[in-house]
Amino acid sequence: MDQRHTALVLSGGDLHELGAKTTHGLLRGSERYRVLGVIDENHAGQDAGIVMDGRPLGIPIFGDLGAALEALPEKPAYCIIGVATIGGILPPHLLAVINKALESGLSVVNGLHEFLSEKPDLQALAAAKGLELIDVRKPKTRADLHFWTGEIFEVKASIVAVLGLDCATGKRTTARILRDACRAAGRSAEMIYTGQTGWMQGNRYGFIFDSTLNDFISGELEHAIVSCWKETQSEVILLEGQSALRNPSGPAGAEYLVSGNAKKVVLVVPIGRKYFEDLEAWGPLPNVEDEIALIRLYGSEVVGIAMNTRDCTLDEVQAFKTKYETLLGIPVVDPLSDDLSDLVEKL
Amino acid sequence: MDQRHTALVLSGGDLHELGAKTTHGLLRGSERYRVLGVIDENHAGQDAGIVMDGRPLGIPIFGDLGAALEALPEKPAYCIIGVATIGGILPPHLLAVINKALESGLSVVNGLHEFLSEKPDLQALAAAKGLELIDVRKPKTRADLHFWTGEIFEVKASIVAVLGLDCATGKRTTARILRDACRAAGRSAEMIYTGQTGWMQGNRYGFIFDSTLNDFISGELEHAIVSCWKETQSEVILLEGQSALRNPSGPAGAEYLVSGNAKKVVLVVPIGRKYFEDLEAWGPLPNVEDEIALIRLYGSEVVGIAMNTRDCTLDEVQAFKTKYETLLGIPVVDPLSDDLSDLVEKL
Repeated sequence: MDQRHTALVLSGGDLHELGAKTTHGLLRGSERYRVLGVIDENHAGQDAGIVMDGRPLGIPIFGDLGAALEALPEKPAYCIIGVATIGGILPPHLLAVINKALESGLSVVNGLHEFLSEKPDLQALAAAKGLELIDVRKPKTRADLHFWTGEIFEVKASIVAVLGLDCATGKRTTARILRDACRAAGRSAEMIYTGQTGWMQGNRYGFIFDSTLNDFISGELEHAIVSCWKETQSEVILLEGQSALRNPSGPAGAEYLVSGNAKKVVLVVPIGRKYFEDLEAWGPLPNVEDEIALIRLYGSEVVGIAMNTRDCTLDEVQAFKTKYETLLGIPVVDPLSDDLSDLVEKL
Repeated sequence: MDQRHTALVLSGGDLHELGAKTTHGLLRGSERYRVLGVIDENHAGQDAGIVMDGRPLGIPIFGDLGAALEALPEKPAYCIIGVATIGGILPPHLLAVINKALESGLSVVNGLHEFLSEKPDLQALAAAKGLELIDVRKPKTRADLHFWTGEIFEVKASIVAVLGLDCATGKRTTARILRDACRAAGRSAEMIYTGQTGWMQGNRYGFIFDSTLNDFISGELEHAIVSCWKETQSEVILLEGQSALRNPSGPAGAEYLVSGNAKKVVLVVPIGRKYFEDLEAWGPLPNVEDEIALIRLYGSEVVGIAMNTRDCTLDEVQAFKTKYETLLGIPVVDPLSDDLSDLVEKL
């Protein structure tokens, strides 16, 4: 019997966009929530998988909450805010939907920096109805945070960081797919989540990178990996990367390599993207060779490239794959569709 | 008239050690506090400057608080905890001293992660006496935090990051000395603080790097630099670095280069140190050429090297200086004693 909580996911009209990446993650799979439907006013009536990436999932899209509750054969337990915004601010138009969800008896899960549990109206409504307001990104208190100790060097698993050339490239999805591909190949594997969606997907080990006080990032990462190793003895431990080494809005990556001791890296490359977060003012994306050199200076090797093929033709994808497989001698794959056995062997 | 607050500083018995670096910073100069004396049970009766680095300052060391209050001609307004600890925990033996300070009518300034204002006994005592408990590292609330916007690219000042090969190398001190050397050479200059001691020293622009939620580090840094630029129009803006690019206990540095747009770097090198934080298990310090290559991959140039000469002979210092000035063609200086005019010209 499926023990997962049932959920409706709000994609804020953006199911086809990178901003709905939390929704995308939940649609790609979760051991914590079973998604019964998506609410997206711009895509009502379609299959959520088709809108996301052209692959049907049998999950319907509704134009609003009322339509969803009327049409679904079972009432979902949770309403999940499935958008990621700059600065983690709640889009104002979703507030009415959250209110309605609570009034309709659904608990609400929120991965933004703006906390629902700090809004007195919502808190009172949830309390009156006996419902939960879960703010996934609420920072831990000092007593629950770990400082880095060096215990990481005792972990014998193959630690692999899944880093990206930019934000919103598919790092989490690639880590999850590689975990499953390892398992399918008979190798035990776990994924360390570092974002709210990774928690929503049900991963047991990890922490929320961007809502942790900076001094404890390395220690929380180490603690997650060491706990995972001690309790599961997994052969492969995949780390979900955040942002990118040189993204000016918040560079990240060194922590995985030097504090998480990830000697191997899978680099996710959005091959059709030119600028950081598609914004010319933020500067051009680095080239792949340069990023590999940077990672090497941190003491780690890129063992494979995962392509994000959004906005690319098949010819462009094939040209990139051929160029870099020849140049680098490592697997270059589309994790959503290619055979991953060569890459799994490298992990 | 000197408008600074008077203060006694607790160095926890470690005035000769790197752990007392907050005390060292206050002894080197502060526009916020005037240090009347240091309390250090291992160095009582000596001159604080002599114990710190062999240069007299005329600031006495006392064995305990009672002796200090008895001997000093004026009663200090503040007692400052002048140690930095791993994880920011309060050394238990200092608790009694803090209690006694409050009982004696001194307010307390604390730069550790362990907050005095969250200790009910101390809070009650301070309230009863009408004294302050200042926790410098207490995180800001969400509403006071800034997200990165790209406005940094409009700043026309020369932005210089003072980075180090390791923690506790003298980055803050170097930044402060370079600020003063710029001013002495007729160039307007400001320093952006990123640690508790930098705040205690009275710098106007900055934030506490390690007690900021990770998602806002880049934005807080940008906000500090942009505010400084708008309000002071300084020719040179020096950024106080934190940790080191590859220190496994908490790597940092990329933020300054890509989010703070610091195209120039002064690299502080502890030339007598072999391992990160002197711990062999944490791994060897990178070599200087390699660190410069890493910084170059982030798009920035090392324009000078500041030597930390602790535990070195004069011959070793001269050999290092000659080797790297020849190899790199940039100034290599001891900021505590050398003429800095060549380096100031490079900023």
